[in-house]
Amino acid sequence: MEGKEEDVRLGANKFPERQPIGTAAQSQDDKDYTEPPPAPLFEPSELTSWSFYRAGIAEFVATFLFLYISVLTVMGVVKDKTKCTTVGIQGIAWAFGGMIFALVYCTAGISGGHINPAVTFGLFLGRKLSFTRAIYYMVMQCLGAICGAGVVKGFMGKTRYGALGGGANSVNHGYTKGDGLGAEIVGTFVLVYTVFSATDAKRSARDSHVPILAPLPIGFAVFLVHLATIPITGTGINPARSLGAAIIFNKDKGWDDHWIFWVGPFIGAALAALYHVVVIRAIPFKSK
Amino acid sequence: MEGKEEDVRLGANKFPERQPIGTAAQSQDDKDYTEPPPAPLFEPSELTSWSFYRAGIAEFVATFLFLYISVLTVMGVVKDKTKCTTVGIQGIAWAFGGMIFALVYCTAGISGGHINPAVTFGLFLGRKLSFTRAIYYMVMQCLGAICGAGVVKGFMGKTRYGALGGGANSVNHGYTKGDGLGAEIVGTFVLVYTVFSATDAKRSARDSHVPILAPLPIGFAVFLVHLATIPITGTGINPARSLGAAIIFNKDKGWDDHWIFWVGPFIGAALAALYHVVVIRAIPFKSK
Amino acid sequence: MEGKEEDVRLGANKFPERQPIGTAAQSQDDKDYTEPPPAPLFEPSELTSWSFYRAGIAEFVATFLFLYISVLTVMGVVKDKTKCTTVGIQGIAWAFGGMIFALVYCTAGISGGHINPAVTFGLFLGRKLSFTRAIYYMVMQCLGAICGAGVVKGFMGKTRYGALGGGANSVNHGYTKGDGLGAEIVGTFVLVYTVFSATDAKRSARDSHVPILAPLPIGFAVFLVHLATIPITGTGINPARSLGAAIIFNKDKGWDDHWIFWVGPFIGAALAALYHVVVIRAIPFKSK
Amino acid sequence: MEGKEEDVRLGANKFPERQPIGTAAQSQDDKDYTEPPPAPLFEPSELTSWSFYRAGIAEFVATFLFLYISVLTVMGVVKDKTKCTTVGIQGIAWAFGGMIFALVYCTAGISGGHINPAVTFGLFLGRKLSFTRAIYYMVMQCLGAICGAGVVKGFMGKTRYGALGGGANSVNHGYTKGDGLGAEIVGTFVLVYTVFSATDAKRSARDSHVPILAPLPIGFAVFLVHLATIPITGTGINPARSLGAAIIFNKDKGWDDHWIFWVGPFIGAALAALYHVVVIRAIPFKSK
Repeated sequence: MEGKEEDVRLGANKFPERQPIGTAAQSQDDKDYTEPPPAPLFEPSELTSWSFYRAGIAEFVATFLFLYISVLTVMGVVKDKTKCTTVGIQGIAWAFGGMIFALVYCTAGISGGHINPAVTFGLFLGRKLSFTRAIYYMVMQCLGAICGAGVVKGFMGKTRYGALGGGANSVNHGYTKGDGLGAEIVGTFVLVYTVFSATDAKRSARDSHVPILAPLPIGFAVFLVHLATIPITGTGINPARSLGAAIIFNKDKGWDDHWIFWVGPFIGAALAALYHVVVIRAIPFKSK
Repeated sequence: MEGKEEDVRLGANKFPERQPIGTAAQSQDDKDYTEPPPAPLFEPSELTSWSFYRAGIAEFVATFLFLYISVLTVMGVVKDKTKCTTVGIQGIAWAFGGMIFALVYCTAGISGGHINPAVTFGLFLGRKLSFTRAIYYMVMQCLGAICGAGVVKGFMGKTRYGALGGGANSVNHGYTKGDGLGAEIVGTFVLVYTVFSATDAKRSARDSHVPILAPLPIGFAVFLVHLATIPITGTGINPARSLGAAIIFNKDKGWDDHWIFWVGPFIGAALAALYHVVVIRAIPFKSK
Repeated sequence: MEGKEEDVRLGANKFPERQPIGTAAQSQDDKDYTEPPPAPLFEPSELTSWSFYRAGIAEFVATFLFLYISVLTVMGVVKDKTKCTTVGIQGIAWAFGGMIFALVYCTAGISGGHINPAVTFGLFLGRKLSFTRAIYYMVMQCLGAICGAGVVKGFMGKTRYGALGGGANSVNHGYTKGDGLGAEIVGTFVLVYTVFSATDAKRSARDSHVPILAPLPIGFAVFLVHLATIPITGTGINPARSLGAAIIFNKDKGWDDHWIFWVGPFIGAALAALYHVVVIRAIPFKSK
Repeated sequence: MEGKEEDVRLGANKFPERQPIGTAAQSQDDKDYTEPPPAPLFEPSELTSWSFYRAGIAEFVATFLFLYISVLTVMGVVKDKTKCTTVGIQGIAWAFGGMIFALVYCTAGISGGHINPAVTFGLFLGRKLSFTRAIYYMVMQCLGAICGAGVVKGFMGKTRYGALGGGANSVNHGYTKGDGLGAEIVGTFVLVYTVFSATDAKRSARDSHVPILAPLPIGFAVFLVHLATIPITGTGINPARSLGAAIIFNKDKGWDDHWIFWVGPFIGAALAALYHVVVIRAIPFKSK
């Protein structure tokens, strides 16, 4: 099927500097991009490189700042009954999405800018990083998230932090655990699919908006999923964020549904990786 | 009239990397861009290409995600009487516009990123894609929209979904059907005119912001039309979105005005195509 | 003074593709940009060019759409006493700023994307367009604004439109006419200064963000001025917008302060042109 | 450690036009960028250059406009008890962040676009500008901020301005001075870290989004910190903004905690400079 994929009508695609909104389709003949080889599962050499450790530190710091700003915003909103004298629920969505935008912008060149174990998992399935690096990133993300939520608890005081729910995720009244799991799966799919679109080597070479704007749609994806699913689960789609808030909150309410915020995002990330690799890039069907 | 179109004073236009905000006018002498030939009405060869089917799948998935996030956001807002503990009506506008931004970013290189039968219709009139492809896209968009709204109904439960209006479009109390039709026409004009501006080969070659930013103003156009016309019709400007919500809601209230959300967007898209082709590009007046 | 202007320390400035946020200063030795010559006051040849008339039509359509979306958004907000079931005052600011962003994006390559007589006046003072073109643009902008507000009145009905204030500008209770005039002057300065920064030939050649992002900060400038001065005057900073709303509203309340919304923006635009030409570019002090 | 830093697996990094979101790490072998030499502490020659004085004027004007728009927005919001008929607390956050976005866009090529003594201090520690220039910028920023707040006081009237708090920063009820200091430190860290990421010569050469988007994440960083810390301190993270509001407000309440809004931002900026120079760029560990 692969040899037939070129779309002869769409000559504009031959010019990588043109953006094909409206009429584009990707052909596979032009060799104007280099598909990076799949990352090996284990790569001992990266363990001796400073950039490996630096990347982990950058993930730690980014996830720390992500939880700090977002959970602090949540605290400011939930403490007010009417929400009118706060930035509102929409402000919470901006805090989560905006931080991901700014942090992906800042750390993309250092660590890849994951800031989310589900993103790391999805990119690992897409063979974009080694198993060693994936595990290392996830550990650093979770540690950063715990520290970030901890600093917020320090500011708010233990009693007030607990009373306000600590920003922990749980399935809200009126929804089943299945609804929550489904919301996490589809929400993470939106995020990880956007990440895959932004990292596609072929599209980066042809669609001029892909490499330039990349951090913006990734941040918007997080913002949009929060708009939709805060009423259902408070929106996880990031196991490190859910874990950090749950550990610092540390009440039964925070732990009961905690599995949903690992299983859901990992399934969503896997589906997004599958969709990108099999449907969009058709990599399994390529003869070489 | 065509031979006189160059604007000799505006030398800066000769440098395609400069953005001519403030003083620019397009001249037609410079051959620094390639006008893609009009798409044929029927192109049998594309039916044998994987990229054709992949494009339809991408439209299906994108419209599915669009309806899922946006209708879920609508549900979260309308269930609260005061709206203060929700993301608010403005949050609904962000959900619709932001999803279009993210999805156009992700799918532009795969299918052109229409996610809207009115956009497909407008681009078909502008001869940017074949009749076969246009029909195929519209069918996939409608199927995706139905599935997306269906998943939201699954989360909310049948009773609650029905009580909350299901995100279906209708002309609100205080406005006539003519107002609603007019709002849909002008709103879709704003969107499709932005799409045509973003896909103009001549402008892409000269205005550096056109190819790079393209998904952003397209998303903003959707956001802005929602800000203005949610009080009138709930804002359609996308027949697939209206159809998907109407089929899943499936009450008389959702069907009575349904024709408005097909006729209005198609008229608006046709006017935008006409404006772009006749006024902006003056293609009918060109001698060759 | 001109010969001393180079800043030898900032070598990075020599590479036009680098963005000098943080440390940059503009030097004047590098000839990597072409300063367009000042536009003549009258240029008969442009009157025979289709691009001249097309530019006016584009200004008409853009200002029409600008007033339509923004005044319709205002109507939707003011008809609700508590504002909670509307997009809110912030939504109004987004409607004005967002439309300018989308319309500048769409029309920059056709007419320069002014959509505002104050911008046209400022750019005329900066000698970016001829007197003929400036007058022509202003007339088309005012006609477009009147039609845009008129369509909104048609949707809302005469009585309701009048009762809701018609989106017309006036100095609000608690502020003097001097406050209103001052707010219009500084607000228009913010907008026109941003426009001049985006159209600077020297900076476009060196700061990579200038040509690409240009429509975005221009739209944001409009958004921000609305955030600040809606409580004072409803925010004009665009005489066509004020005139269109005043003519369609046509009550004494809309006309009493109307001069403020012409005098203020024109003074603000003139100050911005002065600041850009004299301070930033030091053009009067250049020997050649 | 430095010789081992290359990350051989990540071949895509060799192509500076590709954005490495997802998988990137910076290697140090490629010489496709020029690290600017550290700025000297004192550089007499810049004192004879018009660009030096122009840069200070640009900082003055930008900080003037920043305080004018943001404090005026604050006044409009706080005067309404329910906030519902205003742009809301979220609108305040947009005013601060959006103005920084627009002003960095406009002044980056003139003065570097600091508009904030903490940013100037951080970039001075990173040796991006001379001591003379740093002091000069800070003085001009503080003068601009005082004038900007003064104009707002003129509009609002002395009594009303005082009653509404004048936009001055202080630690709010329910938080300790330590909480306020901590919030200022972390908040400024977020901002200055983003600024360093945007000005990194190595990353600008490789990550295509870094030079283009730069003003946007810097503005978003300011927006996000306001979302999170307005409930704690009103958010300073900019000593000029705090000083200007405090001097014009000039009541004990505005002065009591004033030291926090100098010490906090300067510590935060120093930590961000340290993090960028030592961890991210590892400059102290480089042998040459």
